[in-house]
Amino acid sequence: MEKIVIIGGVAAGAKAAAKARRLKPEADINIYTEDTHVSYSACGLPFFIEGNFNDVDMLFVRDIEEFEKENIHIHLLNRVTRILPDKKQILVLDLEKSEEFFVDYDKLVIATGARPAIPPIKNINLRNVFSLRTLEDGINIKEKVLKSKKAVIVGGGYIGIELLEAFVKQGLHVTMIEFAPHIMPIFDDDISEIIKSHILERDSENVEIINSDSVVELLGYEEVSGVKTKNGLKFDADLVIIATGVKPNVEIAVAAGIQLGETGAIKVNNKMQTNIEDIYAAGDCVEKVQLVSKTPTWIPLGSTANKEGRCAAINLCGGEDCFEGILGSAVTRYFAFTMSITGLTEKQAAKLGFDPVSVMVTKLDKVGYMPKAKNITIKLISDRKTRKLLGAQAIGAGDADKRVNTVATGLICPMTVDDFFSNDITYAPPYSPSIDPLLTAAQMMIEKLNKATS
Amino acid sequence: MEKIVIIGGVAAGAKAAAKARRLKPEADINIYTEDTHVSYSACGLPFFIEGNFNDVDMLFVRDIEEFEKENIHIHLLNRVTRILPDKKQILVLDLEKSEEFFVDYDKLVIATGARPAIPPIKNINLRNVFSLRTLEDGINIKEKVLKSKKAVIVGGGYIGIELLEAFVKQGLHVTMIEFAPHIMPIFDDDISEIIKSHILERDSENVEIINSDSVVELLGYEEVSGVKTKNGLKFDADLVIIATGVKPNVEIAVAAGIQLGETGAIKVNNKMQTNIEDIYAAGDCVEKVQLVSKTPTWIPLGSTANKEGRCAAINLCGGEDCFEGILGSAVTRYFAFTMSITGLTEKQAAKLGFDPVSVMVTKLDKVGYMPKAKNITIKLISDRKTRKLLGAQAIGAGDADKRVNTVATGLICPMTVDDFFSNDITYAPPYSPSIDPLLTAAQMMIEKLNKATS
Repeated sequence: MEKIVIIGGVAAGAKAAAKARRLKPEADINIYTEDTHVSYSACGLPFFIEGNFNDVDMLFVRDIEEFEKENIHIHLLNRVTRILPDKKQILVLDLEKSEEFFVDYDKLVIATGARPAIPPIKNINLRNVFSLRTLEDGINIKEKVLKSKKAVIVGGGYIGIELLEAFVKQGLHVTMIEFAPHIMPIFDDDISEIIKSHILERDSENVEIINSDSVVELLGYEEVSGVKTKNGLKFDADLVIIATGVKPNVEIAVAAGIQLGETGAIKVNNKMQTNIEDIYAAGDCVEKVQLVSKTPTWIPLGSTANKEGRCAAINLCGGEDCFEGILGSAVTRYFAFTMSITGLTEKQAAKLGFDPVSVMVTKLDKVGYMPKAKNITIKLISDRKTRKLLGAQAIGAGDADKRVNTVATGLICPMTVDDFFSNDITYAPPYSPSIDPLLTAAQMMIEKLNKATS
Repeated sequence: MEKIVIIGGVAAGAKAAAKARRLKPEADINIYTEDTHVSYSACGLPFFIEGNFNDVDMLFVRDIEEFEKENIHIHLLNRVTRILPDKKQILVLDLEKSEEFFVDYDKLVIATGARPAIPPIKNINLRNVFSLRTLEDGINIKEKVLKSKKAVIVGGGYIGIELLEAFVKQGLHVTMIEFAPHIMPIFDDDISEIIKSHILERDSENVEIINSDSVVELLGYEEVSGVKTKNGLKFDADLVIIATGVKPNVEIAVAAGIQLGETGAIKVNNKMQTNIEDIYAAGDCVEKVQLVSKTPTWIPLGSTANKEGRCAAINLCGGEDCFEGILGSAVTRYFAFTMSITGLTEKQAAKLGFDPVSVMVTKLDKVGYMPKAKNITIKLISDRKTRKLLGAQAIGAGDADKRVNTVATGLICPMTVDDFFSNDITYAPPYSPSIDPLLTAAQMMIEKLNKATS
């Protein structure tokens, strides 16, 4: 009986197991994870903390019983400490029993994910200092939030922003401290500035945002009571969140001779195969190809993890499936304010050798006489010479996120802005203005490109 | 001074005038229209009737003063009765003064739009029988609706559905009578059936839908009091709406020797030029190219009219601009239930010689634990042999409309469903499930196509 072993079971691992089961009803499928749970929506944790729902079970995509019913065996609190490719074995440490044992595999999937990248901060081990990665983190944070008045969030990326919303909604005063000159540095600076203004306008009394500074020390005894920054600022806090990004869990892969890419994540081909036969990798521990620039990138996201897990399973079961890469499409929100992105930013494009031209347009998301019309801002980026679309960012209180998806399609099959302008997209007063802001942006881009060449 | 004359001033005509003014600050620009208003959002009329807003002025895109300020002269209640291409003149009838006069032009734009296609119905001239096309129609209907209890809507297309919502919202009991076996016949039958079920489920007490029947006679004396159908049914009504489609206003064009296309609308090239020199046409009176099939089609829509008006203006001012055609993207709603479409339906595709394969998927529009998650149904259509995307329909109480726009981009630059499946679109719990219903549909399509060929 073929033995399929999967390390990790959140998104990529769980998906790979389920897909492999459908393709090979007879295989012996085992998931080993040091986590306390499998197959849950990690992306949903901020919304659980926020109080959108209070039953943590709602985060489970599938529960253990469902896996067992499909004859997929889940081994929780079982840390894989070594991979032995020559013997086709892994070494597992049972964290509860403190016992080590070997497990044979015919095909192995590494889906070890990522973990918080913790910067060097003094007293980081005080109580009520959290990162948000696992379900347990989420439960612990929520418990503390309900008893707190003041929080400090270190880091102004996706997790930081989502927790900011959650904490404000739960009535806390929050100080966000971001090392970079702008929060949400994944966006271009001009867009980041609009995001920051919106947050401070909406919640000027509860939210403080500090840029270009970093936390160097946590204050307090046993329990955290505040933070101190490099620039000498001090802020009180009942809890502190470290949301300064994540890094791929690749240590056991490296030790086994598995090659990393230039981003520091595991290098795989488009079949999710590593450099070692019969070892696949998928999800947040894996390097991806950015489809616009065809360069290596590392953006850990749940939607990508699912697709990669599926692709790995198909190939290791003898089928053929390719996962070519990502655009870097992503979306989050701060209350009703959406922030969405696809493709390259202007600054990334310039760094990668393109000659980017950008336009930015702010328009109502629907016709002005409709009661719920709200502004959105779209930034569109094209290459000067080829006129090809490179990326888009759409933010605002209006209906923004699906508009970058409309651009995304034009990025996977590369398209000029001229082609895109001929796009015939839906119009009705409750849904968009008669000329959609997207097409207004495309039109402005064409005029800008034409001016530059004439 | 160059004389630019435009016949009609709602969407295409008003846009052409405004664009021409920007390109030629010195030209003499005149709009002649038999209408009482120009430059208004005709698509907004149902929402005005519904009571989303009560100030009819909100429907104006630009008012007469704005046009006059830009030195664009608007001649309301001035019907153009003849075009004399040899003399480069038009003959105008001033409806108020009952005077006729000639006007010279150097460049002429025909933007005469469309008018309701009224089927042969006995006593059609009774009071309180309306079509909805002009601003005046909208004002008259709203006035009557506020005093009515029962309405009959003849026709179950876009206008019919939007007025159905408006009337129900204003507290009326409504009977909709549609000649075809399904309402919203622009969609595939399976989708139309879901739409009908939703409406009847939501408003079983106020709404009645009769299919495969038609109104043959209006009852009443002076004022309408009811309708009689071909199948012998009778329904009471304080007002009756005839929404059985529209036809292009092409009579004066035909009389001037301007060529029509096979759809009966004016034939133009991709510069919006008719077969007669210096005469352009744009908007609802013009035939379009369906971009997936490259065949002539006639779908009158405000968004297209705007683009065509702009294109005509650029070309007649000596610039170069092309309008290649449309996908047939459209959206409407019945209360919170969205109906959106792009490209070819399955039945159209079959008629046009494709070998269409379709899949239909019903999924939540966002992750299930988010409080506002709602179902949407996506139908995707591909060609069996080439695997190219042909069209999509998305309906439901959830966030549906922008999802067809994401497909639309893949139709203007033709793309296979395999390419589309590799699309990296945004994911976060408040916005979509980790595998978007669009990608689920694409995956099902790929499996279906593969099964068919293996």
